[in-house]
Amino acid sequence: MKIGILGLGLIGGSLGYDLRSQGHHVLGVSRRESTCERAMALGSVDVASVDMNLLAAAEVVFICTPIALIVPQLQQLIYHLPATTVVTDVGSVKAPIVKDIVPLWKNFIGGHPMAGTSDSGIEAAQHNLFVGRPYVLTPDETTPQTAMAVVEEIVRSLGANLYYCQPEQHDQAVSWISHLPVMVSASLIAACMGESDPAVLQLAQNLASSGFRDTSRVGGGNSELGLMMAQYNRQSLLSALQGYRHNLDEFINLIEQEDWVNLKSKLKSTGQARPKFVE
Amino acid sequence: MKIGILGLGLIGGSLGYDLRSQGHHVLGVSRRESTCERAMALGSVDVASVDMNLLAAAEVVFICTPIALIVPQLQQLIYHLPATTVVTDVGSVKAPIVKDIVPLWKNFIGGHPMAGTSDSGIEAAQHNLFVGRPYVLTPDETTPQTAMAVVEEIVRSLGANLYYCQPEQHDQAVSWISHLPVMVSASLIAACMGESDPAVLQLAQNLASSGFRDTSRVGGGNSELGLMMAQYNRQSLLSALQGYRHNLDEFINLIEQEDWVNLKSKLKSTGQARPKFVE
Repeated sequence: MKIGILGLGLIGGSLGYDLRSQGHHVLGVSRRESTCERAMALGSVDVASVDMNLLAAAEVVFICTPIALIVPQLQQLIYHLPATTVVTDVGSVKAPIVKDIVPLWKNFIGGHPMAGTSDSGIEAAQHNLFVGRPYVLTPDETTPQTAMAVVEEIVRSLGANLYYCQPEQHDQAVSWISHLPVMVSASLIAACMGESDPAVLQLAQNLASSGFRDTSRVGGGNSELGLMMAQYNRQSLLSALQGYRHNLDEFINLIEQEDWVNLKSKLKSTGQARPKFVE
Repeated sequence: MKIGILGLGLIGGSLGYDLRSQGHHVLGVSRRESTCERAMALGSVDVASVDMNLLAAAEVVFICTPIALIVPQLQQLIYHLPATTVVTDVGSVKAPIVKDIVPLWKNFIGGHPMAGTSDSGIEAAQHNLFVGRPYVLTPDETTPQTAMAVVEEIVRSLGANLYYCQPEQHDQAVSWISHLPVMVSASLIAACMGESDPAVLQLAQNLASSGFRDTSRVGGGNSELGLMMAQYNRQSLLSALQGYRHNLDEFINLIEQEDWVNLKSKLKSTGQARPKFVE
C-alpha cells in the first residue's frame, strides 16, 4: 500500500518506520528540506519531499503536524489528492479538528495515538512506538465505512489498542487524564515557588524527592503543549478544572474541620480508584 | 557504640543493618515478639526484645515508631534510660514532636530521614537506604551540643545528606514538597471519578497513561500516611493548600479569559522552576 505522512516528527517518523517494516511504500512530506533528507537517511520514509504533490499517489494520508497546522495543511493538501484518498490525523484534540475537516474532505476519520514521549522531532522517532498504547478513532455519522476500515487495519497492524468514540467524548476523556493533570501539576510548582521565606524555599528544594518529582513532572514540561491543550480543548478542560477545584475544596474543608474520619475515607477511595486508571 | 532502635519497621530495620555493618552493637525493641525474632534472624539487630529495658545500655536511641506513638513511647522509655542517653526520632513532622519531647528529655534532637519506600515493616528494611537521601536534624536553643554531635556523626556515616533547620521550617518545607502533593494528587483522582458520563469515564480509564500515572501516584497511596500528614502538620498543610488554590485559580482564570500570552508565560515559569526542586 502507498501511505503518505504529512509532518515528519516523532509521530510521523515513528509511523513511517513501522509501516515500511510491514512492506508499505511510505511517502513523507515536511515543510523543511533538511527534515526530508534526514527522514530518508534514517529510513523512516521511502521518499520525502517538501512538495505536497508527492502525496497524490498515496491511498491513505496521515496528517502528523502540530495541532495548529492540521486544518491549514489539509486545506492545501486536498488540491493534490484524488477524492478516493483516505485522510486521517493524529491530533491530541478531536472535536474542533473533525468539525473543520469534515466539510472539506469526505474520506476522513479523526485519530489520536496516545504515544508521546518527552522528545520530539524526526530524531526522536522510534520503531514500535505504538505497541500496547491506546489509539483512538473518532468516526461520526458522515465517516465512510471504507475510510474507517482502511485506517483501522493500519492502526491494528501497529500493535496499538484501538478505541472508538465520538470526538467530544475523546476530548472530555483526555481533559481528565491528560490535560487536567498538566494544570494540576503546574499549579503545584507555582504554589511552591510562592513560599515567601527564602530559607524554607531553599529547604523545600533540597528535600523534594520522588513524591514531588512525580506529581510535578507534567506541569514542568513543554509549555507549548500545555498551551495547546488549553486553547484547543478549553471547554472540557475548564469543566475538569471546576470538578477538580470542587474536590480540592472538599479536602481543604475536611482538614480545616479536622474531620479525620471522612478525610481518611476520601483518601481510601482515591487509593481504591487509581488502579482503574493505571493498571 | 551501643545504639538502640525503638520500632523495627522499614526505617528502624534499615538503620540497624547499616549501623551493624559499621561495627556498632544494635539493640532493638518492638512491641511484637515476632518482629523481634524476625529482626534478629534477618541480622538487622544484634539483639531484640519487647522489653524497653534492653535500651538502658544504649548510648543513643533512635525512636522509629509511627508518628502517633513517638511521644507515648518516649514517655515509657525514659524510665529505663540514664540521663546521659541521647534520644532522637525519625518522625516526618517535627514541631509537635519536638515541643512535646523537649520538656521530657533534655538530651534530645529531632530528626527526619527522607527515605521512605512504598513498602513498610521489617521485611522492607534494606541496607544503604539513606545513602544520598536528605536527613534533617532540627535542634533548638535547648539542644545539648553533645547530643547534636553524636547524632550528626551517625547520620553522616549513613551516607545521608544532612540538613539543619528549625522544626517549624522543616514542617513548612515538607508541607510544600511532600504533604501538599498528596492532597493535590488525591484531588485529581477524586475529580476524575466524578465524571458523570459512564462512557467518558470508561474511556478516561482506558486512555490514562504515564502523565496520569505520575500525577496520581502519591494521591493513590497509603491513606493512613495521608491522614497522619494532615493531623500532625495541619496548619502548614492548610497554608500550602491555600497557596495552591490561589495558583490553581490563576490558571483557571487565564484559561477562562483566553489569556494565552500569560498562560504560556506561567507554564514556562513552572517548567523553569521545577529543576530547582528535582535536579
